[in-house]
Amino acid sequence: MGEFELIRALFHPLAEATRQHGVVLGPGDDCAIQRVPQGHELVFSIDTLVAGVHFPSGYDPAQLGWRSLAVAVSDLAAMGADPVCYTLALTLPEADSDWVTALVSGLREASFAFGIALAGGDITRGPLTLTLQVQGTVPEGQAIRRSGARPGDLVAVSGPLGGAAAALAWLDATDPPASVEGFLARYHHPMPRCALGRHLRGVASAAIDISDGLVADLGHILEASSVGAELEPGRVPRDFGGTWASLDQALYGGDDYELCVTLAPAALDRLPGHVASSLDVIGRVCAGSGLRLVQADGIIEEIAVPAGYDHFKGR
Amino acid sequence: MGEFELIRALFHPLAEATRQHGVVLGPGDDCAIQRVPQGHELVFSIDTLVAGVHFPSGYDPAQLGWRSLAVAVSDLAAMGADPVCYTLALTLPEADSDWVTALVSGLREASFAFGIALAGGDITRGPLTLTLQVQGTVPEGQAIRRSGARPGDLVAVSGPLGGAAAALAWLDATDPPASVEGFLARYHHPMPRCALGRHLRGVASAAIDISDGLVADLGHILEASSVGAELEPGRVPRDFGGTWASLDQALYGGDDYELCVTLAPAALDRLPGHVASSLDVIGRVCAGSGLRLVQADGIIEEIAVPAGYDHFKGR
Repeated sequence: MGEFELIRALFHPLAEATRQHGVVLGPGDDCAIQRVPQGHELVFSIDTLVAGVHFPSGYDPAQLGWRSLAVAVSDLAAMGADPVCYTLALTLPEADSDWVTALVSGLREASFAFGIALAGGDITRGPLTLTLQVQGTVPEGQAIRRSGARPGDLVAVSGPLGGAAAALAWLDATDPPASVEGFLARYHHPMPRCALGRHLRGVASAAIDISDGLVADLGHILEASSVGAELEPGRVPRDFGGTWASLDQALYGGDDYELCVTLAPAALDRLPGHVASSLDVIGRVCAGSGLRLVQADGIIEEIAVPAGYDHFKGR
Repeated sequence: MGEFELIRALFHPLAEATRQHGVVLGPGDDCAIQRVPQGHELVFSIDTLVAGVHFPSGYDPAQLGWRSLAVAVSDLAAMGADPVCYTLALTLPEADSDWVTALVSGLREASFAFGIALAGGDITRGPLTLTLQVQGTVPEGQAIRRSGARPGDLVAVSGPLGGAAAALAWLDATDPPASVEGFLARYHHPMPRCALGRHLRGVASAAIDISDGLVADLGHILEASSVGAELEPGRVPRDFGGTWASLDQALYGGDDYELCVTLAPAALDRLPGHVASSLDVIGRVCAGSGLRLVQADGIIEEIAVPAGYDHFKGR
């Protein structure tokens, strides 16, 4: 058995441990097989994480396992989909079984937390890269897209922003102060908002997960929906356990993986209280285009939204 | 617009041009959406190609586009699935729009040839790597697995083997002789056997596509099915337009992407003539384990089948 066969074998217990009802056939054949319940659609997204680009070289492999699956599942949450299974294409410079064992432990923890099963994969030799495709289901026609925001809708986010950006300065610190633990937790241990996404099906007019920063990602909704928006910066949540991210970090920092959603005021009122209370309203959709910050004193500042063809996502 | 946004935009016409009925939502949102017809299952496989490992560095990008999609779709053919759509995670060292335009042209040609649509993707900066996930459908329960081979079944292949291995010596030749054109075509322009796979649903007892070599891949069927097999080397087809691959290349060479299938003799007789004639019977499944070559003079040679945990495929 070659060294890479041994590495592959480390994933087998993970696939066994994380079975999901929808997965008819898991790893080990030419393809895997998923059954999509009648009246439902398959929702899927592929994401690549490159060492030194999307995570630090030398990053802890157990944290990498959690983080890479969480980041991918966050795209399912943004569509309101129920996670079912994922595939993993792992490219490794060498067959380091300790490193892979730790990666698998992080993946396992995240698999159980999000209710998603490993259905297949491919392991090759090369520069360290992880590509995950996550697959979920939604009732037919109920996936939340980016393109449904309408003038008069509220803009809301699912939690504090800027923590992951604020953590960047502390990633290499050997003994970071307790005050920045909330930032670091956000960077290392993002939580995709799947339960919220599910509640927002048929309620939110548009949704996106905040991976590139609030301004950039809300900008994607505005562009796809052909509308503009006004934000009140004082309402953007950025409190991480008593330590605040800066407004710049909250507006422009990436990697937070909260949801940014738009919904009609009446739709917000129809949500169960515990769901509505998990949303912070930070602004309002308006006709036209562009994004404006409305300060408490009424001064309005036009914000440059990254232009663009975002038909093929990534960064 | 950043340089990578421009690169992403190059894929948009490809997604537009290759729409498939089953793709409800293509690239541009957090996720894509596929509808799986009632009574069908989703069949999917993920594959990574790393520059310098799975294709030569400096390989022609248009050929790379065809080859990477063909290789991936071949896994669908081996399950008897109908191709529907694929996602592409592309990692590029630099935003070279000429290179990407050529890649897209190769992908487009293959997309049309195999009837498969680009449904989503991710483009990132890093060492040159392509990861493709292909997705297809089969009527419920009819996917052909590796595990159904039974003693008495015939072993057959869908075409000549060893050509891609024989081509390796000529890949860098500036003016290769006409006699090796068949080898080179096999390497650069593999043809997944989708139509054959479809005919073999409910007929073949097991199938695999030959990516690692006949001995290794038939070995995967034998292991998954807990059986052995005898091959007659004289019957293994290896004629590429009048030039023959060596027996070693035909037995051990990879990258041919023909199908290797097992089926009962009566099942072969039930196939339409034009389908049956596309199969070459090369041996027989027997009880026990292991693979034996039976020479014309009756001498039997035991072949070492690569051992292994192949629960997570790759090489």
